[in-house]
Amino acid sequence: MDYTFSERMKNMNGTATREIFKLLGDPSIISFAGGNPAIECLPTERVKEITGDICAAPDFARVLQYGLTAGFPELRELLCKYVESAGITGAKTENVLVISGGQQGIDLALKAFINPGDVILVEDPTYLAFLQLANSYEGVCVGVRANDDGLDLADLEEKIKKHSPKMLYCVPTFSNPTGKTYSAENRKAIAEMTAKYGVIVIEDDPYSKLRFKGEYVPSLKSYDTAGNVIFISSFSKIISPGNRTGVAVADPAVIRKMEIGKQGTDLHTPNLSQMITYEYLRRGYLAPDLEKAVKIYGEKKGAMSEAIRKYMPEEFECTDPDGGLFIWGRLPERIDAAKLLPEAVARKKVAYIQGSVFFADGGGTNYIRLNYSYANVAQIEEGIKRLAELFKEKLA
Amino acid sequence: MDYTFSERMKNMNGTATREIFKLLGDPSIISFAGGNPAIECLPTERVKEITGDICAAPDFARVLQYGLTAGFPELRELLCKYVESAGITGAKTENVLVISGGQQGIDLALKAFINPGDVILVEDPTYLAFLQLANSYEGVCVGVRANDDGLDLADLEEKIKKHSPKMLYCVPTFSNPTGKTYSAENRKAIAEMTAKYGVIVIEDDPYSKLRFKGEYVPSLKSYDTAGNVIFISSFSKIISPGNRTGVAVADPAVIRKMEIGKQGTDLHTPNLSQMITYEYLRRGYLAPDLEKAVKIYGEKKGAMSEAIRKYMPEEFECTDPDGGLFIWGRLPERIDAAKLLPEAVARKKVAYIQGSVFFADGGGTNYIRLNYSYANVAQIEEGIKRLAELFKEKLA
Repeated sequence: MDYTFSERMKNMNGTATREIFKLLGDPSIISFAGGNPAIECLPTERVKEITGDICAAPDFARVLQYGLTAGFPELRELLCKYVESAGITGAKTENVLVISGGQQGIDLALKAFINPGDVILVEDPTYLAFLQLANSYEGVCVGVRANDDGLDLADLEEKIKKHSPKMLYCVPTFSNPTGKTYSAENRKAIAEMTAKYGVIVIEDDPYSKLRFKGEYVPSLKSYDTAGNVIFISSFSKIISPGNRTGVAVADPAVIRKMEIGKQGTDLHTPNLSQMITYEYLRRGYLAPDLEKAVKIYGEKKGAMSEAIRKYMPEEFECTDPDGGLFIWGRLPERIDAAKLLPEAVARKKVAYIQGSVFFADGGGTNYIRLNYSYANVAQIEEGIKRLAELFKEKLA
Repeated sequence: MDYTFSERMKNMNGTATREIFKLLGDPSIISFAGGNPAIECLPTERVKEITGDICAAPDFARVLQYGLTAGFPELRELLCKYVESAGITGAKTENVLVISGGQQGIDLALKAFINPGDVILVEDPTYLAFLQLANSYEGVCVGVRANDDGLDLADLEEKIKKHSPKMLYCVPTFSNPTGKTYSAENRKAIAEMTAKYGVIVIEDDPYSKLRFKGEYVPSLKSYDTAGNVIFISSFSKIISPGNRTGVAVADPAVIRKMEIGKQGTDLHTPNLSQMITYEYLRRGYLAPDLEKAVKIYGEKKGAMSEAIRKYMPEEFECTDPDGGLFIWGRLPERIDAAKLLPEAVARKKVAYIQGSVFFADGGGTNYIRLNYSYANVAQIEEGIKRLAELFKEKLA
């Protein structure tokens, strides 16, 4: 039969990115396309140990039964403390929701607030999957300019006045795709301005623990005095993406709506996933494991920056992040990175993501996002070398 | 600040049922309210063994990394075979989506098809959480009458003609809340009629494996020749609710939309959950475990039916299910089961669910849903005895 899909979904199709990903099964391809954490940084032995202990516990049967939608009580308690590491103090369990990865937290926040046609401000460029999700709620994303300090506050205020947005979405620390970080002053100003105009903020924070240089900056949420900021953090990049756990922190009224939304979506996050995250944090494994992981990420990022300096054409400009997973590169405007991608994959056996998909308002065709966490150091050098050859050919 | 929640969520609040559930922490209360499988039927030792084996496997690290949205390839393959037990033949992986419990399958189907204002036909009474979920998509549920054979086909056709519904939702086997099962002829007729009028059907099938008497009936999906039926099955009642796994089977175009919806919602079901379900099925544990489980469910249901016969007032009528988890009871119309519930819990220490919450069109105030899977046989007799005392008091 001919299916009449809902308005929200009828234009949601597989992205070009997803099609490219299918090619990545080929092991000869060096991928800078994904956002996977380094496999060698995932705490495989710790999770084995923890899972074994959970199975051996006398109350294992409770792991198999239904759990509470808001999450394991012990985990929620612990998360109140955990978010202090992002400068969020005084969180109570009613402020905290266990989520099935950061993605679910974003989804639930949109579900709770966005009506079709509502404007959502986003940093331009921003997280691709956010743009798709906002689209599925028929929200209208409008880009806000950014500078080296964070969001351009004049542009932010102008866009707020012009569009009366319902929401601002941002990744203030080691942004996806740019790798840039907002200053503390910029965060404080954003918190104050959005509170003044009654704009809800989603602060998406999957990367802040992956800092290999520079100074810690408190979360935007830590400057929230009005209760308009929803802080969403994920354990995907620091414990395991496959385990699908994260945490949302917000005003109790907001958490309650998100909890009701979650009840409809999946009832609760799987108990074993929650208990693994709980035990990993409780046993104090995060700090030592992070120390090792950020060292590796720092080396990989260093290798990529070095290879870029060595091989890339002079016209190639890029960011120099202090953490996270991505470098954001800019080619001369006559290069269309989307058009070049199939050739990069097929002929040079290197994958990246074309920058245009990260822009709410179009454009950005000459940008690329490069992930440095997944490939090893030798692959990083080789991959950048091959990409540089391709770019030089096209620029010649 | 004052939050302006979305239209879809602004009227979604905690249900009365959820408030009652909070009281169930009191161990002196006998609960017939939930829908939890019997803890003694959950395969605790098997899951321990499987989880240990997964942890010991040389490729355990892959469990920690991101997975595919549609599910583990091996699990999808196996599920194509698995659904043959529901009479669904010839399913290919493109027909199959791994879901985080049956609830998510329903959510994704609504997300794919329902616009605000769309009419959804439901059996009256039907699954409470479906009514809430449909509400969150601003769908309009309209009840269809049922009889002992299944849906009243004349009423179904009349409602289709009158409302041009987008969708029909039903639980054809051991319905929640009634425990009743549609005949094979009724299913075939529903499949034909909905195909004729282009109505999408969600066949929700969490209970059909829990049959302790009577004859197997093939799924409604097995009669689908037009591709309009979405079959949703769950492993919550037969392996573990806390593990959150299930399967949706539909036309590839529908599965693809649901997959894109799932990508936005939670990226993928946790790998460990999927692998536990995969190994449990692959090792052939389901058949022998089910044999033991249905024996227990049959005994419990027998104990409840017997206690009802022994203690309940003559005016109390109820269903006699061949499987599943629920008995559906009817009191004289002057009894309001919702009003009586707090007294039942506080004074008699017994919980049930008031029937009214299961009706799309209101009414049903004199009905109750009784779960027989969770309490033990002695509690079932004692609980029914206490409830009967209360009802007799009120009827006197």
